[in-house]
Amino acid sequence: MTGSLIIAGLGPGAGDLVTPQVTAALEQATDVVGYIPYVARVAPRPGLALHPSDNRVELDRARHALEMAAGGRRVVVVSSGDPGVFAMASAVFEAVEAGPPEWRDLRIEVQPGITAMLAAAARVGAPLGHDFCAINLSDNLKPWSLIEKRLRLAAEAGFAMAFYNPRSKARPEGFARVLDILNDACRDARPMIFARAVSTEEETIRIVPLPDARPEMADMRTMVLVGTSATRVIERDGAPFVYTPRSVPS
Amino acid sequence: MTGSLIIAGLGPGAGDLVTPQVTAALEQATDVVGYIPYVARVAPRPGLALHPSDNRVELDRARHALEMAAGGRRVVVVSSGDPGVFAMASAVFEAVEAGPPEWRDLRIEVQPGITAMLAAAARVGAPLGHDFCAINLSDNLKPWSLIEKRLRLAAEAGFAMAFYNPRSKARPEGFARVLDILNDACRDARPMIFARAVSTEEETIRIVPLPDARPEMADMRTMVLVGTSATRVIERDGAPFVYTPRSVPS
Repeated sequence: MTGSLIIAGLGPGAGDLVTPQVTAALEQATDVVGYIPYVARVAPRPGLALHPSDNRVELDRARHALEMAAGGRRVVVVSSGDPGVFAMASAVFEAVEAGPPEWRDLRIEVQPGITAMLAAAARVGAPLGHDFCAINLSDNLKPWSLIEKRLRLAAEAGFAMAFYNPRSKARPEGFARVLDILNDACRDARPMIFARAVSTEEETIRIVPLPDARPEMADMRTMVLVGTSATRVIERDGAPFVYTPRSVPS
Repeated sequence: MTGSLIIAGLGPGAGDLVTPQVTAALEQATDVVGYIPYVARVAPRPGLALHPSDNRVELDRARHALEMAAGGRRVVVVSSGDPGVFAMASAVFEAVEAGPPEWRDLRIEVQPGITAMLAAAARVGAPLGHDFCAINLSDNLKPWSLIEKRLRLAAEAGFAMAFYNPRSKARPEGFARVLDILNDACRDARPMIFARAVSTEEETIRIVPLPDARPEMADMRTMVLVGTSATRVIERDGAPFVYTPRSVPS
């Protein structure tokens, strides 16, 4: 038997947002590897070994998955959302590059998923309907000064923005600084969207003007979106629609 | 009967990248509206009216869909990829805002899809594994000066980049200017990925260093990705892996 490694995106949470491609990969797997809450989304069955692991051990997890694949297992590494967006795909390829040469000959495939920013955007309308950027606000993996620089340049560019990992217990003050920088750089009342646990039973969506945004509106399960200066809010009975127009006048 | 409007993403092309949510919506639809090649991906059946229309008539198409939904039909507007990324969702909400007040009370839902940049990234590894931006290079909807400004700021920010609509017959010179600007702003040999018709029978993938990129490598079916200065290429037998590391050293 030849081993293989598939890095699969489970989407934001709802079962009907998992692609048939990923469902088929999980049906063929001998081993599923990933962060505890993501592995918990895979149904157990005879012949399938589940290998949940804690957060912040991405490289160990990637090496473990590669070792099993090299040993002939059919391994699926699961990520929430899309595996290529602040998730496991990059960690696996980092491990491949640093690992034994034979790992490069493994059959490795990335299977995309519905990433959180697009699921969150869909729930309110089309806030990312024009040029946009995606920034991981965690400063575990990069210096704070780089986050600040990117926020200011993104505002200057007029990008809509999507923030992953906005706030954790370990660094509650970081997101407050993000809001200060955005207010300083944008100086308007463009809409911000706080979308928590999108597509799950615990989903909550909040839309506020940037000056009214508060750090405690986000936690680690929240996707934060920021419109542009052109983003529109359509008021109506029920939750408003938010969209960023496709066109910018000449 | 109460009408409804669903704006659904069909993903990049492969059937197993269409979410079960979208498949179910199409099964319940009375009318499917969209650009000709996207409507052609929906299987005809009795009771389903297909309304294909030409490119560049997005607002007319959106109004037509809204009128039918207001008349009690179950309408699905189909986009390739994700409907919120340079696709039909923004056009529909623009039509809602400008349209009769009763359109605001319609049940309107956006159903996300696998967008082209993430499908393309998955085919080569994880080139968007760190902060990134998505830019529509079409200058139909915004002035060229804004595209140039955004490219330069994105390079300064160190974003990986994903370009939608890189090149058309109507403006073949635009993408040559994009490459000149990128070379001027980046001054290195970071990898560029030209991913054409991803996940379809006609898929082709090409990976070249930025200085070797040529305008004719892209057409309107090509997704173009640009790495960062830190993006790695892992050579091996067969197509190389490309990934952008998750971390930036302090």
